Amino acid sequence: MLKRIPPLLGPELLATLRAMGHGDEIVIADANFPAEFLGPTAIRADGISATDMLEAILTLMPLDDFVEEAAIGMAVVGDPDARQPIYDLFEDIVRRHEPGMGFATIERFAFYERARQAAAIVQTGESRLYGNIILKKGVIRPDAA
Amino acid sequence: MLKRIPPLLGPELLATLRAMGHGDEIVIADANFPAEFLGPTAIRADGISATDMLEAILTLMPLDDFVEEAAIGMAVVGDPDARQPIYDLFEDIVRRHEPGMGFATIERFAFYERARQAAAIVQTGESRLYGNIILKKGVIRPDAA
Amino acid sequence: MLKRIPPLLGPELLATLRAMGHGDEIVIADANFPAEFLGPTAIRADGISATDMLEAILTLMPLDDFVEEAAIGMAVVGDPDARQPIYDLFEDIVRRHEPGMGFATIERFAFYERARQAAAIVQTGESRLYGNIILKKGVIRPDAA
Amino acid sequence: MLKRIPPLLGPELLATLRAMGHGDEIVIADANFPAEFLGPTAIRADGISATDMLEAILTLMPLDDFVEEAAIGMAVVGDPDARQPIYDLFEDIVRRHEPGMGFATIERFAFYERARQAAAIVQTGESRLYGNIILKKGVIRPDAA
Amino acid sequence: MLKRIPPLLGPELLATLRAMGHGDEIVIADANFPAEFLGPTAIRADGISATDMLEAILTLMPLDDFVEEAAIGMAVVGDPDARQPIYDLFEDIVRRHEPGMGFATIERFAFYERARQAAAIVQTGESRLYGNIILKKGVIRPDAA
Amino acid sequence: MLKRIPPLLGPELLATLRAMGHGDEIVIADANFPAEFLGPTAIRADGISATDMLEAILTLMPLDDFVEEAAIGMAVVGDPDARQPIYDLFEDIVRRHEPGMGFATIERFAFYERARQAAAIVQTGESRLYGNIILKKGVIRPDAA
Amino acid sequence: MLKRIPPLLGPELLATLRAMGHGDEIVIADANFPAEFLGPTAIRADGISATDMLEAILTLMPLDDFVEEAAIGMAVVGDPDARQPIYDLFEDIVRRHEPGMGFATIERFAFYERARQAAAIVQTGESRLYGNIILKKGVIRPDAA
Amino acid sequence: MLKRIPPLLGPELLATLRAMGHGDEIVIADANFPAEFLGPTAIRADGISATDMLEAILTLMPLDDFVEEAAIGMAVVGDPDARQPIYDLFEDIVRRHEPGMGFATIERFAFYERARQAAAIVQTGESRLYGNIILKKGVIRPDAA
Amino acid sequence: MLKRIPPLLGPELLATLRAMGHGDEIVIADANFPAEFLGPTAIRADGISATDMLEAILTLMPLDDFVEEAAIGMAVVGDPDARQPIYDLFEDIVRRHEPGMGFATIERFAFYERARQAAAIVQTGESRLYGNIILKKGVIRPDAA
Amino acid sequence: MLKRIPPLLGPELLATLRAMGHGDEIVIADANFPAEFLGPTAIRADGISATDMLEAILTLMPLDDFVEEAAIGMAVVGDPDARQPIYDLFEDIVRRHEPGMGFATIERFAFYERARQAAAIVQTGESRLYGNIILKKGVIRPDAA
Repeated sequence: MLKRIPPLLGPELLATLRAMGHGDEIVIADANFPAEFLGPTAIRADGISATDMLEAILTLMPLDDFVEEAAIGMAVVGDPDARQPIYDLFEDIVRRHEPGMGFATIERFAFYERARQAAAIVQTGESRLYGNIILKKGVIRPDAA
Repeated sequence: MLKRIPPLLGPELLATLRAMGHGDEIVIADANFPAEFLGPTAIRADGISATDMLEAILTLMPLDDFVEEAAIGMAVVGDPDARQPIYDLFEDIVRRHEPGMGFATIERFAFYERARQAAAIVQTGESRLYGNIILKKGVIRPDAA
Repeated sequence: MLKRIPPLLGPELLATLRAMGHGDEIVIADANFPAEFLGPTAIRADGISATDMLEAILTLMPLDDFVEEAAIGMAVVGDPDARQPIYDLFEDIVRRHEPGMGFATIERFAFYERARQAAAIVQTGESRLYGNIILKKGVIRPDAA
Repeated sequence: MLKRIPPLLGPELLATLRAMGHGDEIVIADANFPAEFLGPTAIRADGISATDMLEAILTLMPLDDFVEEAAIGMAVVGDPDARQPIYDLFEDIVRRHEPGMGFATIERFAFYERARQAAAIVQTGESRLYGNIILKKGVIRPDAA
Repeated sequence: MLKRIPPLLGPELLATLRAMGHGDEIVIADANFPAEFLGPTAIRADGISATDMLEAILTLMPLDDFVEEAAIGMAVVGDPDARQPIYDLFEDIVRRHEPGMGFATIERFAFYERARQAAAIVQTGESRLYGNIILKKGVIRPDAA
Repeated sequence: MLKRIPPLLGPELLATLRAMGHGDEIVIADANFPAEFLGPTAIRADGISATDMLEAILTLMPLDDFVEEAAIGMAVVGDPDARQPIYDLFEDIVRRHEPGMGFATIERFAFYERARQAAAIVQTGESRLYGNIILKKGVIRPDAA
Repeated sequence: MLKRIPPLLGPELLATLRAMGHGDEIVIADANFPAEFLGPTAIRADGISATDMLEAILTLMPLDDFVEEAAIGMAVVGDPDARQPIYDLFEDIVRRHEPGMGFATIERFAFYERARQAAAIVQTGESRLYGNIILKKGVIRPDAA
Repeated sequence: MLKRIPPLLGPELLATLRAMGHGDEIVIADANFPAEFLGPTAIRADGISATDMLEAILTLMPLDDFVEEAAIGMAVVGDPDARQPIYDLFEDIVRRHEPGMGFATIERFAFYERARQAAAIVQTGESRLYGNIILKKGVIRPDAA
Repeated sequence: MLKRIPPLLGPELLATLRAMGHGDEIVIADANFPAEFLGPTAIRADGISATDMLEAILTLMPLDDFVEEAAIGMAVVGDPDARQPIYDLFEDIVRRHEPGMGFATIERFAFYERARQAAAIVQTGESRLYGNIILKKGVIRPDAA
Repeated sequence: MLKRIPPLLGPELLATLRAMGHGDEIVIADANFPAEFLGPTAIRADGISATDMLEAILTLMPLDDFVEEAAIGMAVVGDPDARQPIYDLFEDIVRRHEPGMGFATIERFAFYERARQAAAIVQTGESRLYGNIILKKGVIRPDAA
């Protein structure tokens, strides 16, 4: 336990967030996501919801304002325009930490391909379906150091 | 995620519980416990309470009925007879899974020494002080296989 | 040994099943299958039949209902329509655990190619020829957690 | 699978038996034995009985005729003279492969200490209690090569 | 770079501080300290002063209030009562972060022995002699979580 | 040393033969063959002839009867029809263990390419030129187990 | 600490510079650069400016005079002709150590691609944006040895 | 130190030469050659000249007489027909050990590409430019064993 | 294969002999010796006799003339004065390579203890009992370099 | 190759010297010294004399002025007062780099024991007997930084 650090973030996850640079991505995955065999390091967070994890990560990590979308979810299989309740929760958390930013979705297998390039995948215990989100890290500018 | 398995138990913890044999011990540690540098493998469970973890583990793992005490907590430093609220919660969970078994405590540094011999230490996010417990694994008898 | 867990599933196999996510595949291979040099981790189960292993795995692991076929065997070399006795046994076990699902076969070298992408290959001691089966993991839905 | 080799013996176990020399010991352990954290390499044989494993190993490995006892079981805790049914089965198999040799037992914790020095521990799925046996390897003499 | 985290703390050091528990110690060492061959992991911080590193670490890590002295320097060789200028700087930083706590020194080889048990040694570029300090981690209480 | 096992086969080679499955290949290479940097694990057998090694391996390992040629040598460079004395020795040993099977050769660089895919290469001390042979493992059928 | 060696260069970085040969490249990266997941080894230099690191490295390492540009920065995103203040500082340091050499820039993603081939990436704590530079190592001629 | 072995050849280099087979190549590189990041294992020989190393290696290793050129140097950049003094020294040593063989050169980047496939690169302290040579190993024939 | 090097000595054994210094010991062990689990690296030489291996090693390695006995065998168990035929063969080979040196024996378990400190143990296929010998390496003097 | 760095010092040795701190020791060993199996990392410098290596190391590394003797050789076996020619060479080099410091010797096995605690052992090709020296690293004071 440390001061200022959300307790959900253990040593390995904290080191990963600190090691990431501008444009690197991290995935928060739900309990059914195929995280362990996809390629990137999988960091376990069994029993933790994806929304609590998102809240904890965005407390420390800035999102990328060089791109259109820095927070990307997985679209419903077979119904790309369907809206899942967890999407709104994700979007609220993102907007609270990064005013002006939004939340978009991409198709399931496109999501997998992008996740393969991530710095890490955090496998939460999120039991709600489609509880997955990719986050693209931004920069901290000199005056914000 | 698997059927029958409490979702709190991730791959590494599940493998550890399965690999343990008669008399091997596992420690559920609170968020302040010095787990990572004590010797045994530390398995992270940040954000999870010690009582939820105890509940999950005892769903699968039998306690040792060859010894007097198979569930051991840490006594309050400087006041060995003091009773902590979490002791009662630990005791209730143990009794529910293993009728007739109890809960005892040992002194802080004796607890550390015993923890050094454990198969693993599960570092939870338990924020209540003295939220630590050692569990000694029992046998599964032929007719219970 | 643990409560609720079929004893055939050792620590490494249990961890693998727990680590797999939606769409990941595991192969149960017979004693002649070239498992160790194909790429994925090979988990030994010498002396165990493929049918007993299938029974044990499906006790814990759901199959994927997003796809047509989630349980796939190897077709007879040179006679793709031939029916092997072990196919029926596989199919019965699958149907008992996953009502409504079936069993299909693919050609030998196509089977090898698909096995190369598996999370793991369980090499049993199955001595009956064509005693191989690929299993695609499904999701556990929120209400089934 | 190989000709002449009992199929229960997988690659790692076969290599271990071959690598052992005069006086080295191997332990066949039951399903409750604390094999994985004792020190020596643990070789899994989940689902296999200790007696089938003993039969397979003695098909290839000679016992040591330089010592009094080359096959040693674990005595019943608290009743060192008690006879377990599996003792007779162990003894029969030993005598069939090594005429003139017997079977003795030592106390539980002495057994653990001796097992710590073994070349390996084979963890079977033996569910009968006290299904453990230490085997001391003998020599193959020039005329038997 | 992350929000709230002093930029001097890189991924490995941050993970170490997070992994440490109650009573674990970390050493901030000067540029001449024999850090790399003493035993604990050495974390490089070439070019950084010991006082800047102390400031950064105490921003996140609480000191142990269960013991008399939680911040310990190295006494001057051959003159244990001599006061070095850097001692005052260390003491000021400690007191600012942990009101009521002090700073003590121990003899050079006693310092080495204690450092051998540390969780890690941070080798700074501190060029002032005696620029070494051991820090003992404290707890974060439930209401401070 | 073990009963029933040709003494030339050490632990690593024995494990490799046991681990190989239907269609996997192993190379017996002469002393000049570029075995160590080709890719597959190289198993040393310095001082042993290729013919003695072939004899030992075929005592345990069945050849593949699903293919035309399961034992393949290297053709003479620049004279593909030339017959080397060691070819006849190879062929005799193969036929003695696998009645009805033959021995063919392929061009030097084709041999290298195929050897790159082998499970292992056994580097013998064979000093006769062209003392190389690839062996393709067969199946053991249920009634032969 | 060593004589003649700038103290900013720790053991790993010093070894890397020494191991590099003619044409090998090293990257000095700012605090926001995605260094850790790009491929090459990342060497941490948190808290150190890119200009101080450049000064230290060029004290020991010659630049390549076989090519047009041996010191390459990252162009401003969206404005390739824009001049950043740190460019001038980089150029001054380069010219002081390597009279007659200059400083050029390439586009952000071209910079990343080239950095993927580097011998190492030194991640400094440089907080000024565009504080990145690739250095191509030159030769030391016989008379300069 | 061993009898018969040139003392310049240390354990790792000796093992490499012994492990190489017909057609495998080793590179003797000068002090400026980019050996460590090219791919093959780099063996250090700081302070040793390329000609002394060539002499030592050819004392033990035969060159390949199946090819036109078994000893290949690097041509002068921009002047492929230029003759360097060290070429003559290389050629003399080659001819003394392998009567009838010569010495050729290839272009710098072609040399690098070929070096990437070598069994190892020996990085000497050769300070003369173009002090690099690739050696292709030959066979030892039965009567020469 | 190399010129001047006895072909029985493969890469690893050659490197070990070269790496050994004054007073280091190597063990040539027979096929029944417990070499693999004793501690030192075991180098396989299955199928090779201990006397051929001794001949090969002494061709390169000098024995230690600072001590009384630099070649030590294992005495017969229970009959320490008994003479084994292989002792004479060992002694002849030693005397041929190192005129004036002899051969002594020590008790079985004393031999094991000494072997635990060896640089390596070469496990031959020697089938004659007591075919074990410890060799202590000597120096090569300047004039013999 | 780097500017200011003696070319004899390769990447690993340079990193070791840089990593060493006050009081850490390094051994320069002759070609017969048992360096590889003593415990510390052995760094090869085959073909280099101990005196050239000493010259190179002392160009960068200060000796310890907190102790009586910071440069220690090995005394002649059986004649501790005997003077070896190389002792004078060692002493001259030490005095040139560290005016006022001397050179002492200790008995052979005491030398070995001390060498076991060293940061590393540099195995040179020194063929003169007793060409061994232990060096204890000193500090670089602030004004010398």
